[in-house]
Amino acid sequence: MGKVYLVGAGPGAPDLLTLRAAEILKRAELVFHDALVHPQTLELAVHARKILVGKRSGRHSTAQSFINKRLVDAARKHAVVVRLKGGDPMLFGRAQEEIDGLRKAGIDFEIVPGVTAATAAAAELGVSLTRRGIARHVVFVTPRAAEGERENDWAASVLAADTAVIYMGAGLAEELGAELIGRGKSPTTPIALVEGATLPEKRAFHGTLADLSKLARKAGDGPAVVLVGEVLRAALAEPVLAEKIESILKRA
Amino acid sequence: MGKVYLVGAGPGAPDLLTLRAAEILKRAELVFHDALVHPQTLELAVHARKILVGKRSGRHSTAQSFINKRLVDAARKHAVVVRLKGGDPMLFGRAQEEIDGLRKAGIDFEIVPGVTAATAAAAELGVSLTRRGIARHVVFVTPRAAEGERENDWAASVLAADTAVIYMGAGLAEELGAELIGRGKSPTTPIALVEGATLPEKRAFHGTLADLSKLARKAGDGPAVVLVGEVLRAALAEPVLAEKIESILKRA
Repeated sequence: MGKVYLVGAGPGAPDLLTLRAAEILKRAELVFHDALVHPQTLELAVHARKILVGKRSGRHSTAQSFINKRLVDAARKHAVVVRLKGGDPMLFGRAQEEIDGLRKAGIDFEIVPGVTAATAAAAELGVSLTRRGIARHVVFVTPRAAEGERENDWAASVLAADTAVIYMGAGLAEELGAELIGRGKSPTTPIALVEGATLPEKRAFHGTLADLSKLARKAGDGPAVVLVGEVLRAALAEPVLAEKIESILKRA
Repeated sequence: MGKVYLVGAGPGAPDLLTLRAAEILKRAELVFHDALVHPQTLELAVHARKILVGKRSGRHSTAQSFINKRLVDAARKHAVVVRLKGGDPMLFGRAQEEIDGLRKAGIDFEIVPGVTAATAAAAELGVSLTRRGIARHVVFVTPRAAEGERENDWAASVLAADTAVIYMGAGLAEELGAELIGRGKSPTTPIALVEGATLPEKRAFHGTLADLSKLARKAGDGPAVVLVGEVLRAALAEPVLAEKIESILKRA
């Protein structure tokens, strides 16, 4: 019986993988990976057969129950099986369903955490998600409900938190902005939309919550995070950063 | 003029550093590091002088303004200066003050994100922080206000989020639990306290919100995270995990 590693591939750039993940990939016999994992990351798995199972927002993807079953079957035939996911496996993936399937089948598994898109985007902007005197909490949220899923109140969590990072496809932006403003969030709350954080083609757009759908139209339809909160205003007050942002906006 | 890298050292285990961070440490001439950075991580900086500036909850630490100044001075004398912080630099560090200082002085800088304790603890437990049908948002919060800081309502953000991860010294547990229950959070909400996640001496304690201060007394006074939310209940329902948790509790 083999072992399954649920591994976070990090936010995009291949060198933001952890040392542990790189070492496991070198030993892997089979790698089941998401569509967004970087080709150079997959190349680390020199001995492995690579199987694309991953979801991309709005595109065809392998059914989750089928992935769960394939992981179990693979661990019965191979010593080292890797399930490679963008970002961190414990945030906004369907990892729990895969873990539950492995547990039920009695398959040994290990989870390797990764860098998530929220902190990678904050790093790109040079803006901390928390800041002394301004923000002591940050919420990570995905407002997209799966089919048949109960409607958790994502907006309430954004309203209560000092800083919010919304993991989204840019296509959702218009209704998100309207919902937050309708629920009392100031339209002048500073926001930043970061697309492709840590990749060469990354783009960042700054503005206020009232601008969200406008900024989202400038961005593509790929995965993006939207940062919302006063931590961004403090950074905008820095003259050097303001210049940098202006040049980003001109490029956009 | 040199460049300053603000680098996340990850949650504890030295192999949860990113490949990028490891490469930068190899080139470093000076490393200013927190107390909690692993000795093996520091050893990667083979050419560097290492200077401990980091804070530990409740212990003597270098004043922040002095750290800010030292980073600027160092970059005027050295090509590669590293500020190495536990976890991710953009979460619960004082990175923004260091960034602002570097910007004002016109020093080039780069931020390298890292794995944060919350997802590392979730990986240890095998419990996803989000789960289809149960949790679409997770808040990361530190309830410890710095001296003179305005009192953000940390509890409101915990109450509004599906899952919460509280970054804390275990010493705060009693008042945290009382505050959350007093504000209407169910005393039977499942919690887990994880101490030293990813290190060999790691310990995990499971229970309900009503048990928080009891669990915290079993834990040491080192850094810990407390996970709060229904995602933990679903995991407890798995018979295999329940056994594992029982064995952890017996060891504790």
